[in-house]
This record gives sequence, structure tokens and C-alpha cells, in this order.
Amino acid sequence: MTAAFIGIDWGTTHRRATLIAADGTLVAERADGEGALACKGRFAASLEALIAGWPEADASLPVVMAGMVGAAIGWQAVPYLDGGTPLSALARHLTPVAETPPGRRWFIAPGYRLHGDGGEVDVMRGEETQLFGALHLLGPNAADGCYVLPGTHSKWVRLHGGRITELRTYMTGELFALLRRHSLLGRLMPEDAADDRDDDAAFTQGLDRAAAPGGLLHHLFSARTAGLFGRIEGPALAAYLSGLVIGDEIGSALATVPRDVPLLLVGAPALCARYERALAHRGVSAELLPETVGARGSHAIARAAGLIDG
Amino acid sequence: MTAAFIGIDWGTTHRRATLIAADGTLVAERADGEGALACKGRFAASLEALIAGWPEADASLPVVMAGMVGAAIGWQAVPYLDGGTPLSALARHLTPVAETPPGRRWFIAPGYRLHGDGGEVDVMRGEETQLFGALHLLGPNAADGCYVLPGTHSKWVRLHGGRITELRTYMTGELFALLRRHSLLGRLMPEDAADDRDDDAAFTQGLDRAAAPGGLLHHLFSARTAGLFGRIEGPALAAYLSGLVIGDEIGSALATVPRDVPLLLVGAPALCARYERALAHRGVSAELLPETVGARGSHAIARAAGLIDG
Repeated sequence: MTAAFIGIDWGTTHRRATLIAADGTLVAERADGEGALACKGRFAASLEALIAGWPEADASLPVVMAGMVGAAIGWQAVPYLDGGTPLSALARHLTPVAETPPGRRWFIAPGYRLHGDGGEVDVMRGEETQLFGALHLLGPNAADGCYVLPGTHSKWVRLHGGRITELRTYMTGELFALLRRHSLLGRLMPEDAADDRDDDAAFTQGLDRAAAPGGLLHHLFSARTAGLFGRIEGPALAAYLSGLVIGDEIGSALATVPRDVPLLLVGAPALCARYERALAHRGVSAELLPETVGARGSHAIARAAGLIDG
Repeated sequence: MTAAFIGIDWGTTHRRATLIAADGTLVAERADGEGALACKGRFAASLEALIAGWPEADASLPVVMAGMVGAAIGWQAVPYLDGGTPLSALARHLTPVAETPPGRRWFIAPGYRLHGDGGEVDVMRGEETQLFGALHLLGPNAADGCYVLPGTHSKWVRLHGGRITELRTYMTGELFALLRRHSLLGRLMPEDAADDRDDDAAFTQGLDRAAAPGGLLHHLFSARTAGLFGRIEGPALAAYLSGLVIGDEIGSALATVPRDVPLLLVGAPALCARYERALAHRGVSAELLPETVGARGSHAIARAAGLIDG
């Protein structure tokens, strides 16, 4: 299969690159820790090295990037699109990278900025490409719904008629990592996060606690006392904490979504599995989309922008 | 004024020691960063050095300590009292320090452990001594109420008839510090926390946002977007974040306190002032107690234990 194009989801701390054929078939994939923060000042070199590592890839292939690479802290600031702009306009707003060397075709897709009812602003970068992929996967009618994209900054996004109509970000993953690594609570857990136990019972206890009255700040302290009194062992505490924060996010977010709106989950399989369980615990089901919708989205953008022949 | 006794509130990261006369008058006071974590393995030496630094103090004076010094991570684990045990029993449960050198009289006061309706456990160490001081300051009848003790782990404590009847801890201060120091959000603030601006308007914006629907995990992200779009400048962002977490704590906690129960604030003046403003913003008033109730409490314990003559 001949590679026709490279799509990259270039986030703050991680990067996922996909080599794609003209018909959308995935030829190869690579994920690494070359996030925007790590690549400060050497984005071009990092991208060249990525491409050079793929024997199937020609350096002249068009590259479409999405994510924090297009933020002020990234490679080049690409202005956000506003909620009124349909996802189909992404191709038109692809921005060439200013420092593209001769013979290369490097582009960054814009993110979206939405204003809430209270005048508050919320933003995404990278998720718009996954949503565009979902739109192509499901078709314009079946794609309407509320997309849940769990992660460092979880997004709950309402898609209607090919437009983003609502967006709420939850700092769930970042808070979990902060508490895991830096808090007094983290000291009760194994030194190495790899030793955390993926403990169903403890995760469910966390979900139950999150659903009880008291508020997140109070429930977080319960993880500490549960650890202190041996009600939950150290290796299972991280699962309890995960249940607490995911349960809190889901409780807050579901309150903003009418019950007849279908939920669709997009993201890393292990994390999506946790969200599925947490949603099911509240009697809510969600459709799990393949993780490849991001690659499909960048392919759709590249094709609409005329970067792929055929 | 002759010093008769030393009271120490020995916390996880800080220590506050008070030299007190037989009648309860404060002779001298010292606060330092010799918290329980820093003193691991050298508590006795640290205490000797503290006393030696006071010319007014004799090394044979009785010392009553409270706080994390009596926890498993502290100097010596002192068992918790249960909620049913009145504060007046603290003196009876003073625990001598095992490694007390000859000629010294060193004691640790126990903390309290309470069980909530859902079987959950909550704990305090140090605050019981402040509450006992409030009980002495206000008298047994006027002391009934809900005590708010803001800090790293804020406590909301119901006192009734000299007994602790409810206890809820909120991880507010620890979460603020984590976000300030380690999060992506913190990067938008001044490098040095001392450059944070104590900005009334931004603090109030944070309170308003915390009171709006959406949940804390979502509101925390709003601090990031407010910083990104220059709606709140870097130096004022910490005040906004403080308003968010304090507002969230107060919203959650007030829901557990009947409106006719008086609120009493105990703690560091600057922090108490923020809580007073946050409570007033919700139309709730609180009585501010002097910060010295802790010293008064340890004096009352020492006297009841017969450690002070006269």
C-alpha cells in the first residue's frame, strides 16, 4: 500500500503520527513522547526525524497536524475557528507552517473556540479532527450526539448538523496525575504508577463516593483516610482516586446533556473502557468509536484540501 | 511574666510554638518550617533546639504538642479519640513521648476520628486543640456551632455540648498549591507565588464561577482559558483560582449545615479574611475567632492534666 499522506495528532506531551494511503488505509503508525513542550525550538527537526524513521514515507508527502502544535505554546499559533464554523471548513483553514523547508508540504489544522451561556470560553485543539473523522465514519445524520473524549483535559462536545454547538472541558486527567504524583495522597500509593492495580472494586467504590453528596474536595480527602485506615490498599488507591475524579466529571457533565442525546466515546481504549464502566454505573450507555477516527479525520481534511490525489 | 508551659501545633509542613504563663498569657511565639515531614528521625533534637532558642524557657517546662506530630508519619502514633468522647477528655488522653529524655515532660494530644453516615471516616489532628480553646474562650453554651478551619486540609466541624458531632475535611489548600505549582495552569501565573496579586475582583470572579453549574473539574479549566485569552492577567489568576476552590468548598460545605447553626472561623488571619469574603458573597456571616485559640486550647489541656501549677 503506497503512503499518500501523514496525519499527526501533536499534543502537549505526546504525539501520534499515522502514515495513510490515498484511500484512507492506515499504512503505519507511531506514538512517542515528542509533545509540544518537549519539542520547543526544534519542531522542524523533530518532524523530519519522524518522517525519516519511516522507510515507506517520502519526505515530500503532505503532513496535516492537529493539536497543541498549533497553540501559542506549540510550533505556530493558528487562530481558533468559532463554533458557528462547520467542521467541513477545516480544510479551508489549514495553515501552512511558516518554516516549512523547500519541497515539503506541512500544515496545521485550527482548533475551535466556543462561548458558553455565561460568557465563558472553552477551547479544543486536536479533538476537532477526531470529530471530523467521526462525521465521516458515521455520516452526517448519525453523527449528531454528545462526544466524550477522555484524557488529560476531557472534552464533552455536542455535534449537530456538522457543527460544534457545545463544548465543556474537564481537567480530570491532569488532576488525577497531579494528585498521583505530587499530593500527600500520592504518598500512600506505590512509588511507581505502573504498580497501580486496575482494581474494579476500588474503582466502583470511587464512583459511588463521587455520586454521594459532599463535593469533590471532600471526597478527595476520603481517598486519604481510606488509605490511612487500610480500607483500600495502596496499590488499589489509584483506582479509587480514578473512580472519584471520573465519577465527578461524569456526574457534572451528564447534568448538561439531555437524556435523549446519544453519547459517543472516542479515545484510548483502556481509558474509554473506564468511562464506559463509569457511565454504565449510572445507567447510561455510550457508543465506542474506533481510536482511528483521528487519522480518518486528518485524511478527510487532507482530501478536502486537495492534498491527496485520486 | 514567667513561662510555665509550651504549647506546639506541629503540623505536616509547619510548626507553631507558644510559650505560655500559668494564667494563660502568651509570653512568646515562634513559627517555623520544621514540620513533621522535615523532622523525620530528629524530632527530639528539633524540639530541644526550639526550646534552647528561648531564653525565657526552661528545658524542664511541660510541652503539649498537637497535630501531625502524633500521626503515623509524625514522631509517635497517638490513637485517635472517637466522636463520642468529649473534648474535656483530651487531658486524660495526653500521651507521653516514648523517647522523652530524663528531666523533660513531653506530651502529644490525640486527634479525633469520626464516622459519617455512609460509613466513611474523617479525621483531625491539631484542630481538636483549637476547638478546646474555643470552648474555653466562648463558654460551654456559646461554643455550639459549626467551626470552619481553613488550610491545606480545611475542616468543617460541628461542636455540640462540648462534643464533636460532625467532621468534614476538604482538600482545598492542598489542591490550590498543587495546581499553583505543578499544573499547566500554574504556568500561566508568575514564576514566584509571592508575585501573585491578591486581587479582589479576580477572587470574586472565581467565587461566581464556582457557584455556577458545571462542576469543579470544568471550572478549573476556565482558569486556563481565562489566562489564555487575557481575560484575567497572570498575577491575578491565582486569586481567581483561589476563589474557585474556596467557593467550591463553601458551596459544598454549606449544603451540609442548617442555616440556623452559627459559623465560627478559626485560622490564619489572611486566609480567614478570604473565607469571610467568600461566605459573605453567599450572604452568610461568620464569627472570626482569634488565632490564639490553639494556644489557649493547649493551655487548657495542660492545666486540666495538672501540668501547670497555680
